[in-house]
Amino acid sequence: MATYYPPFRKQSPYLPFGEQRTGRFYGKDILSVKQFNRADLEYIFGVAHEMREMVERIGTFDLLKGKILANLFYEPSTRTSSSFTAAMERLGGSVIPINEVRYSSVAKGESLPDTVRTLECYADVIVLRHPEIGASALAAQYARKPIINAGDGVGEHPTQALLDLFTIVSELNQVDGLTVTMLGDLKYGRTVHSLARLLSLYDVKLNYVSPEILRMPAEIIQELNEKNIVQKEFTTLDEVLPQTDVLYVTRVQKERFENMDEYESVKDAYVITPEVMREAKDRMIVMHPLPRVGEISMEFDNDPRAAYFRQMEYGLYVRMALLAMVLGRA
Amino acid sequence: MATYYPPFRKQSPYLPFGEQRTGRFYGKDILSVKQFNRADLEYIFGVAHEMREMVERIGTFDLLKGKILANLFYEPSTRTSSSFTAAMERLGGSVIPINEVRYSSVAKGESLPDTVRTLECYADVIVLRHPEIGASALAAQYARKPIINAGDGVGEHPTQALLDLFTIVSELNQVDGLTVTMLGDLKYGRTVHSLARLLSLYDVKLNYVSPEILRMPAEIIQELNEKNIVQKEFTTLDEVLPQTDVLYVTRVQKERFENMDEYESVKDAYVITPEVMREAKDRMIVMHPLPRVGEISMEFDNDPRAAYFRQMEYGLYVRMALLAMVLGRA
Amino acid sequence: MATYYPPFRKQSPYLPFGEQRTGRFYGKDILSVKQFNRADLEYIFGVAHEMREMVERIGTFDLLKGKILANLFYEPSTRTSSSFTAAMERLGGSVIPINEVRYSSVAKGESLPDTVRTLECYADVIVLRHPEIGASALAAQYARKPIINAGDGVGEHPTQALLDLFTIVSELNQVDGLTVTMLGDLKYGRTVHSLARLLSLYDVKLNYVSPEILRMPAEIIQELNEKNIVQKEFTTLDEVLPQTDVLYVTRVQKERFENMDEYESVKDAYVITPEVMREAKDRMIVMHPLPRVGEISMEFDNDPRAAYFRQMEYGLYVRMALLAMVLGRA
Repeated sequence: MATYYPPFRKQSPYLPFGEQRTGRFYGKDILSVKQFNRADLEYIFGVAHEMREMVERIGTFDLLKGKILANLFYEPSTRTSSSFTAAMERLGGSVIPINEVRYSSVAKGESLPDTVRTLECYADVIVLRHPEIGASALAAQYARKPIINAGDGVGEHPTQALLDLFTIVSELNQVDGLTVTMLGDLKYGRTVHSLARLLSLYDVKLNYVSPEILRMPAEIIQELNEKNIVQKEFTTLDEVLPQTDVLYVTRVQKERFENMDEYESVKDAYVITPEVMREAKDRMIVMHPLPRVGEISMEFDNDPRAAYFRQMEYGLYVRMALLAMVLGRA
Repeated sequence: MATYYPPFRKQSPYLPFGEQRTGRFYGKDILSVKQFNRADLEYIFGVAHEMREMVERIGTFDLLKGKILANLFYEPSTRTSSSFTAAMERLGGSVIPINEVRYSSVAKGESLPDTVRTLECYADVIVLRHPEIGASALAAQYARKPIINAGDGVGEHPTQALLDLFTIVSELNQVDGLTVTMLGDLKYGRTVHSLARLLSLYDVKLNYVSPEILRMPAEIIQELNEKNIVQKEFTTLDEVLPQTDVLYVTRVQKERFENMDEYESVKDAYVITPEVMREAKDRMIVMHPLPRVGEISMEFDNDPRAAYFRQMEYGLYVRMALLAMVLGRA
Repeated sequence: MATYYPPFRKQSPYLPFGEQRTGRFYGKDILSVKQFNRADLEYIFGVAHEMREMVERIGTFDLLKGKILANLFYEPSTRTSSSFTAAMERLGGSVIPINEVRYSSVAKGESLPDTVRTLECYADVIVLRHPEIGASALAAQYARKPIINAGDGVGEHPTQALLDLFTIVSELNQVDGLTVTMLGDLKYGRTVHSLARLLSLYDVKLNYVSPEILRMPAEIIQELNEKNIVQKEFTTLDEVLPQTDVLYVTRVQKERFENMDEYESVKDAYVITPEVMREAKDRMIVMHPLPRVGEISMEFDNDPRAAYFRQMEYGLYVRMALLAMVLGRA
């Protein structure tokens, strides 16, 4: 008789003899920050913290030895791609790097579901970066293996939001009670939208500092209002900086402005320098999703409050945690 | 005295102490389906089946630990490249991915023999995809290490033909006695040419269903006639579908037609849908080399006869087998 | 309290419990041939020779298991990139391949220091290829982890010079007393400049054979004069070939000439053929940094004096040695 595989199942087909599969995220997709509650976040950050301790103590360990990650990037993102590659390799797993999909099957017209169903024949988990909103959800609908959304257009980038929050937890040892100020382009930045949503699970105060034309979208503000989050909007940083525990800086892109005079006037108002930071607390952190292009002066980099490179390192631990979790090893 | 290496030798220079090198393909190149007889195929499929059992039981194992594959792709092919990468990684080996040769040394004018002789200084086996017919044979002529042809232009793509046949063997447990129907573009598809050649080693009946202008080339038909293979040609599927055990679908590309009316009339006649498949046997399989672009409707994907994604998985096992064999481990 | 990392430190942050870190290059950058003295070279070549013996005996070993190399190439170089990848993999380590930086963060305007400081969050060592002179030194200034310069524009390519010298040492068992003839484009080739500098640490005679417009730069000649190295310049090879122990061939590029007649007359004078080589010693070697485009005829490849492919293999061992050394394992 022919050997027929069951067409769709949400678990790895490879069940090594006698192996335990545990954890609340085993076989799950990571698609959106909306899928997490506070207990989920505590669980993820607990595992991420263990990953950090293991990496600091022994550098790498073979928790995912023999597992394969398909790193499927429909648009380039060195930072995110490298971070997932390193995360898999530090856990002893292997990576299939796929960076040129625009030149290959997809260029021949293949659909995302077919590409994903092909790759899951080779890999145990798929990380997907795609320029279109909803791409990860579509992929997850067809895939038997776990999908991790590494950014889908202006949609979600959940692992970025998780690493942002893990940075805050790790650096300040708390989230409840903090004042978080988001600065720059709050209209188009999916990073700040996702982070704001995650923060709304905690008891925080949010300040939004932006030019008039780049304000936080009304639907985000309303969504957080319904959760009783105190939110205030400003156009300059100086009135909120002294009370800020977390300053989250984003890039204000020239292309967003029709009026270049307006851009010029705004641009310099939002540059973080050692001088500006004299007004801030001693114990607070400055974050940035990177890359930066002048929003934070390099003179500030050696200040202990400059957390943006450490933020990258926390991202490694969060992604190690997610990979281990969806593969049933944490 | 100077240390002079023997210039050309067809075996790995690395002979770990006390290690056994066995198997009929140790140190051999995999260049063409024409190099295999029936005993070879049984040997390959036996190893591939073992690979499958190992992967299903433990996911990965260290048979090729410490071996390095140079994955040299002069033209992009995500599917084939990923499959070989996964095959090597599931055997515990490592991969040097080389996807941009057009931008590098080759762009500076380096010859294929020089590129291959450089890469074999670093790797133990080379997988080569090249747009020109005969490229793999040329490379093999100069290389000391084994070359595996992963497609050379309109020439050969032997590992595709092997995985196609392994799919048939695995799904239907036999080849002798089967009726295989090839559908679509039979003129330009190297896939169907190579598969037809391999099938001619068995006692099969072949049906060719294609538009007039995309018929199976006369030299293939003659070659198989000499081996007493029963071959019949058709322009529509309905008369042969009920007797078909293996339906091999390929893409009919618009660009092949001068007359768009002819294309339009033909196009829909060759689309596989659940409705069309009502006329087929219950126990048969539908195959496709992928990517597909509408030749098989997605509604058919959940039918147990839809074997095209399983086909990808069989490809992994065949490539694992070939890598292990040419490196003397199977 | 917040967990603040010390901002800059020249050592791996991962110090596995009980692990020994030794060696004169532990945590160091490899930026320029100028940083080495003769004792350094002996140390490096000693380790490289051990690497060769290990590879020849067992193919690969886990000296750098768990270590991660970020292979950061701002311009393509299949040869150098593959060599470092293989070197890391033969030592049991992993690689993050980054070949498309022009399309990613850097395209968004990110500075090299930021890119390097991000990557060192994921990796233990960074290999950098960059089109601008001084790029590696800039990167090293900001990085906590070791930087290995894999070529920065017309500047340095120290690992090429080291592998060139290691080839000479391995093939001829000595450097002192040798006559080294450099042939071709001596003006623009950073390879010959770096090698000449390294050779000046030894007691060698140097012959420079080139067209008038492609002579060895005056500053190199002066630098070596100060070290009492005997240097002679020629325009044809025949008068020095019989005394030559090492013939280092480079490519004469058409684009360097304004006068095409001059190019045509010169071109053929510098092509190495079996006939030309009849005038050379029996025991000498011909080297070339590769890729070659006609400077050495393929008919010469099987001559035991043709060392240019072995040169690639020596490059693997030198790069294995450097990686092991800067990571404190040799």
